[in-house]
Amino acid sequence: MSQALFESWVRDELARVEQALSDWVPVEAPAGLGEAMRYGVLDGGKRLRPLLVRAACEAVDGDLSAALRAAVAVELIHAYSLVHDDMPCMDNDVLRRGKPTVHVRFGEAGAMLAGDAMQALAFEVLTPDEHASDAMTPALQARLCGLLARAAGQSGMAGGQAIDLASIGKPLDESSLRDMHRRKTGALLQASVLMGAATGQCSAEAWQALSAFGAALGLAFQIVDDILDVTQASDKLGKTAGKDLHANKPTYVTVLGLPEARLRAHALHHQALAALDRVGLNDASHLRLLADMVVDRDS
Amino acid sequence: MSQALFESWVRDELARVEQALSDWVPVEAPAGLGEAMRYGVLDGGKRLRPLLVRAACEAVDGDLSAALRAAVAVELIHAYSLVHDDMPCMDNDVLRRGKPTVHVRFGEAGAMLAGDAMQALAFEVLTPDEHASDAMTPALQARLCGLLARAAGQSGMAGGQAIDLASIGKPLDESSLRDMHRRKTGALLQASVLMGAATGQCSAEAWQALSAFGAALGLAFQIVDDILDVTQASDKLGKTAGKDLHANKPTYVTVLGLPEARLRAHALHHQALAALDRVGLNDASHLRLLADMVVDRDS
Repeated sequence: MSQALFESWVRDELARVEQALSDWVPVEAPAGLGEAMRYGVLDGGKRLRPLLVRAACEAVDGDLSAALRAAVAVELIHAYSLVHDDMPCMDNDVLRRGKPTVHVRFGEAGAMLAGDAMQALAFEVLTPDEHASDAMTPALQARLCGLLARAAGQSGMAGGQAIDLASIGKPLDESSLRDMHRRKTGALLQASVLMGAATGQCSAEAWQALSAFGAALGLAFQIVDDILDVTQASDKLGKTAGKDLHANKPTYVTVLGLPEARLRAHALHHQALAALDRVGLNDASHLRLLADMVVDRDS
Repeated sequence: MSQALFESWVRDELARVEQALSDWVPVEAPAGLGEAMRYGVLDGGKRLRPLLVRAACEAVDGDLSAALRAAVAVELIHAYSLVHDDMPCMDNDVLRRGKPTVHVRFGEAGAMLAGDAMQALAFEVLTPDEHASDAMTPALQARLCGLLARAAGQSGMAGGQAIDLASIGKPLDESSLRDMHRRKTGALLQASVLMGAATGQCSAEAWQALSAFGAALGLAFQIVDDILDVTQASDKLGKTAGKDLHANKPTYVTVLGLPEARLRAHALHHQALAALDRVGLNDASHLRLLADMVVDRDS
C-alpha cells in the first residue's frame, strides 16, 4: 500500500472517530461536566488507539461499527487518564495537545469528575441498548468491556501509573521499567488491537499473533515517547518536553542511553511486524503502517 | 419476617460481601495501589447497595452468585466515589467510616489512582472469564455493565456530583434539588436493585415496579442523609457531621425545613413499599425491611 493511500485512510478514520466522539460525549451533561469531558477528549490527540482498533478490525474482517464504539471507548479511557495525570497531585502539567489542561480550564474538581465520568462513559458506549442502529451482540459487549476494564485497571494502566509515581527519583533496572511501561501505556495499546480483533472471527493463533503485535508495539510506543521527551521541543510535542527528566522519572533514555533506547524501539518494531507474518489475516496492511508510524513519528 | 431473622440475614450477607470484596480487591496490585484500594473499600460502610442487590435477586429468584459479583461491583463504584469526593479539591474531608480518608493516608495521587482503579475493577468483576467457577452468561455480563456504567456516569452519579459542586452557595428549588439527589445518590441505589433483578427472570411489570421502588428508596435515603447531617454527631455518623451546612450546600433540610423533610422521607418510604405491592415477586421481604432500615436509621 502506498503512503498516500495510507494517509488518506488515516484522514478518513480520524474524521469518523472525531465525529463519533462528538456524537457520544454528551453536550447535555449537567453543570459544565459535558463541556469539560468534551474539552478533554475532542479536537486533539493522535488517536493512535482508535486507529489500532479499526485496523485490527480490518485485519480480521470484523464489524466496523462495533469497532467504532470500541475505538471511542478506548480513546475515552486514554483521555481520562491524561486529564487525571495532568492534575497538580500527579504530574501538575498545564499544557496538553497545545491547550491548557482540563484542570487549568475547569478547576481540579471539574477535571476529576470529568475523568471519572469519561471512564464510565467508555463502558456506556460499549453497551448500546438493543434498539441502537449499531447494536452489538451481548457476547461482544461483554468481551469488549472485559478487555477494556482489565487494560484500564490495577493490572494495566492504573497499576502502571502507581509504579510510575512510586519510582520517581529511584533507579529502575530495565526489567522493572519494562513492567511499568507495559502496564502504563502498553496494556491499553494492546487492548486496542485485541478489541478490534474481537469484533470479528479470529483463530486462537491469530489472536495470539495480534496480542504479541500489540504488546511489542505498545512498548515500542513508550520507548519512542521517552526518546521524544528529550529530543523534541514542547511546541512540536504539544505538551511539556523534558518533563520526565525534570521530574526525575526513570525512562528508557535515562536507564539505557539514547542509542540503546533507539535500538530497542527498532527491535520491538521488527518483533511486532514479525508477529503479523506468523498468521494469515484478512488485511493487516494498516496495522503494519501504523506500527511504522509509531516508531518513525517525531511528535 | 421477624426483625431478628432479618438481622441475621443482614449479618450473613455482610460477611459474604466483605469476603468477596477482600477476595476480589487485589492485595498484589503494584506500588501500594492494592493497599489503598483495600483501605478505601474494606472494613467499613453500611453496604446498603450490596444488600439491595442481593435482596432484589431474591425477589426475582435470581442467580445469587451473579448477584454477589454485582454487589461487589456496585460497592466498588460507591467506594471510589467516596475516595474522590473526600479529596481536597472536592469536599476536603479527613474522616470517613471513622478512619482517616484515603488521601490522608496514601496521598492525593494515591487516592486518585485508587479510585480510578476501583472503577475499572467494578467492570472487571462483572466480566469473569468463562473458566470462573461462577461464570455468568455474556448477556448478563453486558446487562450488568450497561446498568452500572449508566448509574455511575454523567447521567447518574458523576453528573449529580457536578451539580452538587456547582450549587454550593446557591438557592435551589425542590425540583432541582431532587434532580441532583436522584443522580448523585439515587441512580446507584436504583441500579443496585435493578442489577439484582437482572440476575433472574423478571416480567416488564416487575422490572418497572422494582425500578420505582429503587427510585423512591434512593431519594428517601438522601433525604434521611440530609436530616442526619444536622441531627447527629460525627462520632455517630463515622463522618464529619454538619458538613453540608458548613459547606453551604443546599439540602432537603435547608430547602424545606426539618419537619417537611421528614414528611417527604416517609412519603417516599410509603411509595417504595407500594411499588412492591403492585406485582407478584418471589420474595420481597428483605427488600421491604431494607426500605424500613434506610428510613429509620440513625447513622
